[in-house]
Amino acid sequence: MAETEVAQVRFGIVGCANIARKVARAINLASNSILHAIASRSIDKAKRFASDNGLDPRVKIYGSYDQLLDDPSVDAVYMPLPTSLHVHWAVMAAQKGKHVLIEKPTALDVGELDTILEACQSNGLQFMDGSMWLHHPRTVKMKEMLFDSKLLGDVNYIYSTSTTSASPEFLENDIRVKGNLDSLGALGDLGWYCLGAVLWAKNYQLPTVVTALPAVTTNSDGVIVSCSASIQYKEPSSSGATTNAIIHCSFLADTSMDLTITGSKGSLNLNDFIIPQRESSASFELTLGAKFVDLHIGWNVKPERVVVNCDELPQEGLMVEEFTRVVAGIRTTPGVLPDPKWPEISRKTQMLVDAVKKSVDLGCKPVYF
Amino acid sequence: MAETEVAQVRFGIVGCANIARKVARAINLASNSILHAIASRSIDKAKRFASDNGLDPRVKIYGSYDQLLDDPSVDAVYMPLPTSLHVHWAVMAAQKGKHVLIEKPTALDVGELDTILEACQSNGLQFMDGSMWLHHPRTVKMKEMLFDSKLLGDVNYIYSTSTTSASPEFLENDIRVKGNLDSLGALGDLGWYCLGAVLWAKNYQLPTVVTALPAVTTNSDGVIVSCSASIQYKEPSSSGATTNAIIHCSFLADTSMDLTITGSKGSLNLNDFIIPQRESSASFELTLGAKFVDLHIGWNVKPERVVVNCDELPQEGLMVEEFTRVVAGIRTTPGVLPDPKWPEISRKTQMLVDAVKKSVDLGCKPVYF
Repeated sequence: MAETEVAQVRFGIVGCANIARKVARAINLASNSILHAIASRSIDKAKRFASDNGLDPRVKIYGSYDQLLDDPSVDAVYMPLPTSLHVHWAVMAAQKGKHVLIEKPTALDVGELDTILEACQSNGLQFMDGSMWLHHPRTVKMKEMLFDSKLLGDVNYIYSTSTTSASPEFLENDIRVKGNLDSLGALGDLGWYCLGAVLWAKNYQLPTVVTALPAVTTNSDGVIVSCSASIQYKEPSSSGATTNAIIHCSFLADTSMDLTITGSKGSLNLNDFIIPQRESSASFELTLGAKFVDLHIGWNVKPERVVVNCDELPQEGLMVEEFTRVVAGIRTTPGVLPDPKWPEISRKTQMLVDAVKKSVDLGCKPVYF
Repeated sequence: MAETEVAQVRFGIVGCANIARKVARAINLASNSILHAIASRSIDKAKRFASDNGLDPRVKIYGSYDQLLDDPSVDAVYMPLPTSLHVHWAVMAAQKGKHVLIEKPTALDVGELDTILEACQSNGLQFMDGSMWLHHPRTVKMKEMLFDSKLLGDVNYIYSTSTTSASPEFLENDIRVKGNLDSLGALGDLGWYCLGAVLWAKNYQLPTVVTALPAVTTNSDGVIVSCSASIQYKEPSSSGATTNAIIHCSFLADTSMDLTITGSKGSLNLNDFIIPQRESSASFELTLGAKFVDLHIGWNVKPERVVVNCDELPQEGLMVEEFTRVVAGIRTTPGVLPDPKWPEISRKTQMLVDAVKKSVDLGCKPVYF
């Protein structure tokens, strides 16, 4: 193995879900990581995944998750498993000394997630969830505008959606609508992004109260396939504003991923915040001080389209690079600890998911933090 | 008076509010109407309005509303009065045989509105509220797409905002935040449009239940300055879909007027539905069958921008033309009755406003229809 490869973080992918194809590509695109092994519960499925995706023949192929976790050359795992399996396999990975990059939702509830986080922390391992959009340069640019320049004034309203029109087959058979595999349904799979966006826009301040809206649709398993929620910050932020947020997630409506953040002086708006329409560049609309012209027959400003290039690495590549940057630091420099930022982001997002779920279960009663 | 003018509907404007400037212009732009008189409670204010707006010297100027209503040459009135005064003056106008075009919200509650509507109906007079956007050709185009072509599939989600960042002076002194003048506040002034848009998208089917979201802000007078609501259609539409809608209205957030209508196959989206950014043309985004490309690294379609010209008359001119078209028919053709469509639209919108207000007053309890 050449010396340049020694510093590379060697990934094992545990579970050959569809999303693993995207992350396998990202691991290879990122500068400081390499795909070392993949595992499925069946060796045939793992082999098919490798050939379908043109993986390097040197990538090890395992027919069980345990075998991959026992491979001492694996430094870190990426886990796109059904949510109900996260706590078992992520803890197992941590106990075997593997850093953990895990798909969202991170767990069925924050109790399970804490078990995972404790296993990572006690073994000095980095944890991160697979929220790719947080790593896009557009997200970084929007955050600068939100916090550095006070452009928007007092932010008091956030709105976010994540919807997809699932096929009848998905609604019947997919893991994400099965009560025994992923009881969080659309809330965990899609609402995770919306709730994460609210936290992101509030710099990870937790809200005061979360209330599910009465418009909840569940399937015959009792799994949420569509829901909305109101998230209130009653404590004023440093600027004095209280913030209300509304989120909507659904497997029943055509693809949307809207994020709007509105302050007293302006707003940010985009319709593809989770997966940008194009990989190489993305944009958002900035509207500042919109008023009407005389006689109210038009607007004094048009929304400005702010374009942000993303031509070096796609957001999932940047996610892998950020993860492996920390992991490489831990591995190569004595005394370097895992970055607590990422588990904290996951934990707060999971807390909001749990709160919406609880509110739904209570018949849309408010859930206080 | 030339013969061509005989068929014209002669308007009197009762109250010289700011919005009257826009409608005065529209009355003169529209082909079948003419501004005949204006009235304010003070003759000085009325004279100033006339000179500030360059009104034709032939326009009669009255220092009281009664005088204008007693002018036999006035066929129809436009009333931009504080909401609490609507029932008195609109009934008075109807009793004096004037057709009524009135600003929204139409009344403080549907009981008051019914008093107005009864006065109009029993005198054979047309009633319409000042929701200009309903008359824009873009609105007509969107409705075609919503209903004729089934492009969007089963519509199951509607989202609408109307917000404006009011000045401290407005929040202190404006009619629309005074409990004794306009106790509906932002809900009546702005939420009217959002609730009207939900009804419009549902072809004026009333919902099953309306629930205010807990995020309500009121001022010291108890007037709503910001609120949101969930509107549910539990009865499936003819296509089998149930629909949930969310609206948000606020005097505290920078200008927004978003409308999104999402079905199983596509969505309509626009950010200036109440007042288009430009007068001569307007647009909306249509997204159909959005999925992701392989590996989920982008979208298979981009939202298509549908542009609709509006170069003959602005939307408020089209509103005046529609109103006067009906009025002229009633006046010139025996047996022609007022068009029940417009009072029905107003009445259902007022019912939804009332329901949100009631839910707010009940501490966000659901209000059933």
